[in-house]
Amino acid sequence: MSSVNNNIILVPAAAMQELFYSILLKNGLSPEVAKKCAAIFTQSSVDGVYTHGVNRFPRFVEYIQKGYVNTNAVPALKNKANGIEQWDGNLGPGIVNAAFATERSLQLAKDFGIGCVALSNTHHWMRGGAYGWQAAKAGFVFIGWTNTIANMPAWGATDARLGNNPLVLAIPYKDEAIVLDMAMSQYSFGSMELAAMKNEKLKMPGGFNSEGNITDDPSAILTSGRPMPTGYWKGAGLSLLLDILAAVLSGGLATHEISKLEAEFGLSQVFIAIDINKPGTSSAITQVIENIIADYKNSVPANEEQHILYPGERVLQARKKNLEKGIPVLEQIWDDIVKLDATR
Amino acid sequence: MSSVNNNIILVPAAAMQELFYSILLKNGLSPEVAKKCAAIFTQSSVDGVYTHGVNRFPRFVEYIQKGYVNTNAVPALKNKANGIEQWDGNLGPGIVNAAFATERSLQLAKDFGIGCVALSNTHHWMRGGAYGWQAAKAGFVFIGWTNTIANMPAWGATDARLGNNPLVLAIPYKDEAIVLDMAMSQYSFGSMELAAMKNEKLKMPGGFNSEGNITDDPSAILTSGRPMPTGYWKGAGLSLLLDILAAVLSGGLATHEISKLEAEFGLSQVFIAIDINKPGTSSAITQVIENIIADYKNSVPANEEQHILYPGERVLQARKKNLEKGIPVLEQIWDDIVKLDATR
Repeated sequence: MSSVNNNIILVPAAAMQELFYSILLKNGLSPEVAKKCAAIFTQSSVDGVYTHGVNRFPRFVEYIQKGYVNTNAVPALKNKANGIEQWDGNLGPGIVNAAFATERSLQLAKDFGIGCVALSNTHHWMRGGAYGWQAAKAGFVFIGWTNTIANMPAWGATDARLGNNPLVLAIPYKDEAIVLDMAMSQYSFGSMELAAMKNEKLKMPGGFNSEGNITDDPSAILTSGRPMPTGYWKGAGLSLLLDILAAVLSGGLATHEISKLEAEFGLSQVFIAIDINKPGTSSAITQVIENIIADYKNSVPANEEQHILYPGERVLQARKKNLEKGIPVLEQIWDDIVKLDATR
Repeated sequence: MSSVNNNIILVPAAAMQELFYSILLKNGLSPEVAKKCAAIFTQSSVDGVYTHGVNRFPRFVEYIQKGYVNTNAVPALKNKANGIEQWDGNLGPGIVNAAFATERSLQLAKDFGIGCVALSNTHHWMRGGAYGWQAAKAGFVFIGWTNTIANMPAWGATDARLGNNPLVLAIPYKDEAIVLDMAMSQYSFGSMELAAMKNEKLKMPGGFNSEGNITDDPSAILTSGRPMPTGYWKGAGLSLLLDILAAVLSGGLATHEISKLEAEFGLSQVFIAIDINKPGTSSAITQVIENIIADYKNSVPANEEQHILYPGERVLQARKKNLEKGIPVLEQIWDDIVKLDATR
């Protein structure tokens, strides 16, 4: 492997967002769409989800330049039945489509108590948690998921037929939210590649080696192509169900169909929102959650290094730090992004 | 350990259901409620889910005899807002309440496209999959879950603060259904106790030993009290969110509150149904699922012993076999049940 520039620089959020906006404008996005995309990519980076924020931005631009993304397409309503709607994403930018579908699910929840938007023919939504935060900050419970390209074998199989199909659950909590954003593979390929590059083991077994034994060696898993489903057979089963539901509810493509395309697009997604201000009052709900979290935090840690965090708590910590000190970015990645701006 | 009678006898489904019905009648259930309970306990046993079928029946009767279950209580509507309703289970039989809530969610889905019933103050629903089958056989997508008593530590903790909070997803498929029924602990205590009794290892690591290392030794996990969450930190996070959502949506108790009661009751549950005949036609949906399952079944098995099954497929196999040959029951358990009938 050639030597890699591992310098980290700290980029202020405003500067990042401005650069993203400039690049997206130059790549044909309308000011409105460019603004939305730049904001979401920056927010994910501020929140510490670099893999689907700044680190992923170059590939997003690449997809636009290759013509995969219909930069200024907007979703079109296909079917509607009270609290449930089907929309066609028209292969517009995945993050804009997903933010739209989330907003639409909130409106349905306002109207019907619970609402469901199923979106077909869209692009990668990047960080699923973004839509959980969006819904929860607006005061709604959120349950959403996406299918993906096949990247994980079924339980007991060796070839990838399942997507890692991230599932997001969110609920408002005080002025913020509790947001779970979990893929159905135990570790992402990105995190395994990073660990392999650093010559580190995974903290827990994360897949199988080529002999079929479970291992915490990321290189062995990357070689075998057998990442472990979250919870063995359970995450594999959940992945299959999420794919079926996404394809059926949206009338869109399933993982096996997406996997035959030249790149990962044409995804199917589901956005369910519940209006929790109807069955209860906001302050009573806050108290219920606060009591649950207080008990959870009373857990006895297995050792001194363990912090018992709730889903989304790490995001709040990263957000505070990154807004104060700047967003940490690999210098090489940032240089590439700066070049994207200069070369157009 | 004293010697155990491990003889297996085969009980015809009709005989089992008749005996359950007789016992429940003698324990004060109305003929209607006794009939429903006997049918559900028998069906779970026919379907091969013995832990929450015949094997659990004696404890169900014990709870009735102790007065925990209000045998003839029916759920009462607390709040309603179009597609979402809150019901109080009035501590009636958990399986009857859950079947009612499922049915009610289907009606809401018919009326609003998607419906959600949140049920508080109920008893253990036994086999969650039962409600997935119920909804899917009626033509609906189903997403439901329950909270439980604390029986699993948070990730990185040693004391049980989380429930295993089973999650159920289901969708109609041909004349049957695809039904995922997954608890948030990797292995149930029941299955670990069984493996320990037989002196067998678990197939995969299922928890931590008292030194804090992961292990496939069920005895070590039972000693440490540290079963592994499904997918490590992911299942722990999902468990927490499911508990929060169940308590908030139903206005009922959370796991930490249930755990302070003298037995596991006062549970909170959520039942979401989606009417899939509105966005598509039934035959088109069947084709979509059939194509997904066909691709899934094309998986390359890791070895000859592996069968690539979809969630619910094993149930169909057990159902066929048990209806033909009778339901396998440990003779000792069956004897205890027969005594329950004789002693009243």
